[in-house]
Amino acid sequence: MIPTELSLNTIKKTYKKLSSYTLKTPIIKGWSLINDILDTDAIFKMEFLQHTGTFKARGAINNILNLTESQKISGITAVSAGNHAIAASYVANKFKLKNKIFIYNSANKFRIKRCEALNANLNFSNPSNAFQQVADAQKEGYYFVHPFDGIYTIQGTASLGLEICNNTDKIDNILISVGGGGLISGIGSIVKQIYPQCNVIGIEPEGAKGMSDSLQNKKPINNVQIDTIADSLSAPLHMPYSFDICKEVIDKIVTVSDKDLINSMKFMFENFKMILEPACVAGVAALLGPLKNQLSNQRTVVLLCGSNIDVKTWNNLVFN
Amino acid sequence: MIPTELSLNTIKKTYKKLSSYTLKTPIIKGWSLINDILDTDAIFKMEFLQHTGTFKARGAINNILNLTESQKISGITAVSAGNHAIAASYVANKFKLKNKIFIYNSANKFRIKRCEALNANLNFSNPSNAFQQVADAQKEGYYFVHPFDGIYTIQGTASLGLEICNNTDKIDNILISVGGGGLISGIGSIVKQIYPQCNVIGIEPEGAKGMSDSLQNKKPINNVQIDTIADSLSAPLHMPYSFDICKEVIDKIVTVSDKDLINSMKFMFENFKMILEPACVAGVAALLGPLKNQLSNQRTVVLLCGSNIDVKTWNNLVFN
Repeated sequence: MIPTELSLNTIKKTYKKLSSYTLKTPIIKGWSLINDILDTDAIFKMEFLQHTGTFKARGAINNILNLTESQKISGITAVSAGNHAIAASYVANKFKLKNKIFIYNSANKFRIKRCEALNANLNFSNPSNAFQQVADAQKEGYYFVHPFDGIYTIQGTASLGLEICNNTDKIDNILISVGGGGLISGIGSIVKQIYPQCNVIGIEPEGAKGMSDSLQNKKPINNVQIDTIADSLSAPLHMPYSFDICKEVIDKIVTVSDKDLINSMKFMFENFKMILEPACVAGVAALLGPLKNQLSNQRTVVLLCGSNIDVKTWNNLVFN
Repeated sequence: MIPTELSLNTIKKTYKKLSSYTLKTPIIKGWSLINDILDTDAIFKMEFLQHTGTFKARGAINNILNLTESQKISGITAVSAGNHAIAASYVANKFKLKNKIFIYNSANKFRIKRCEALNANLNFSNPSNAFQQVADAQKEGYYFVHPFDGIYTIQGTASLGLEICNNTDKIDNILISVGGGGLISGIGSIVKQIYPQCNVIGIEPEGAKGMSDSLQNKKPINNVQIDTIADSLSAPLHMPYSFDICKEVIDKIVTVSDKDLINSMKFMFENFKMILEPACVAGVAALLGPLKNQLSNQRTVVLLCGSNIDVKTWNNLVFN
């Protein structure tokens, strides 16, 4: 059962409320060359053109719109490999909130700079104890804007699902990169209400397959082994609320290797001249890899979920 | 008067004939953030996703489809700073034609490699005598696929104009990069037949403003002074046939500096994550520069005409 806070009517209201703060991102469809290569009727949802460069802005903004005045005064905290830190910095800056944002030591400099440009109170942290540091900040009174769990964060991603459905006819498949699971649970819950026959397919890096393992174990694991270039998909743990929705809405989950991701980054440059981070191209990697020849003559939305990467880092990954 | 070979009916037939060989390239429209910054209702036509990376493929293919069998046997010749050389190499390879293609010594390596990958018979040439070398090749029997002049080349670009009009409602303005003038004369001739009120606006680099000078002198000049990073817009001369159409269809021509082009390359990366060559972003540079605040509340097509540039060269131009 999809929970009532993610019902179609509720998300229509969320979408309307959010639309003053978020961008409607463009789609590209009907490009025969790409459809021939990918062997499916592909629709690219360019969510990397959202404010902050990723879908994370939708959930972060929705959290803030639901805070009480006293919560707003107490400020917010967040933890992230970078993209959610940018989204949290963005809302803190936009709504003038006190903040304490934990970003992994390993975060790409491009992302750190984006947070700094938004005047974030940035704290560098080790992934293994970052969630503990956030818990400590909560005790100090900061409201935790969760990167992938909780009602408001997932209502944010659900609103993205609604935007996709509003701008496409029938969809047969939707391919979604999976980190913690907040994106696929939100989008999946809406897609399943509008197009019940649509296959919701998750893609994880081989080196961060926490959701695949959680689904197999039928419970969210909290010690994911991480070894991948897809930093944005490297959630160290999964959470009961979002995991329960994932169980409900995910039809299939596949993994792709770092090599697949690099090849897909190269593919997106050669064919679209776009510089996209590894996490963003997971759906393309799945179409070129594990899903090859399986989605012929079907309409497939490929969610390009976000991209914050500098040209030099991209070039080193793809051409070195 | 627009010549009869560019009448709407004729170009509809050309488009139909070409459509088995060319791609229908995507458009991006309705993205509020960009519209706010550019202060116009912008539609980006992503022609850099055409075969060979530029619109040049349309004209080159149309030339070949109009050759006699004996002309095909004699082969083709071409001259180019790179993009038309790729298009000529592409058709020679596709239609298995003998060829002799002159490419400027200064051509970007990325473009040379694309020609080589198509097994072109490539000859390196100095811009100042390249057109003479082509004339010599014509004497040997090779058919000259002109980079920007002649009926078939311009029917090719006119077919791109038709594709744009077929996929947009009323257009108030269309912004087109100008090199030799083959692109704007073809597109302009069709746009003026479908939307007579539409302003056809050409954009030249300050360091290659041969069309501006030709229009001022009312005749095509043949000694253009070249000093710009926009190699694809660096036509050394203009031709009577295409110039006469340009005179008829161009409503306005503006120039942009190399600095404007670099800023626009950066803008297109920051906002679209796209790596585009200088010539491709001339329309964006015009909106951010000389046309600023002039096209508010109007629908403006920005033709992203082509892009063949490697990431390192791009990075050196933009960040160094």
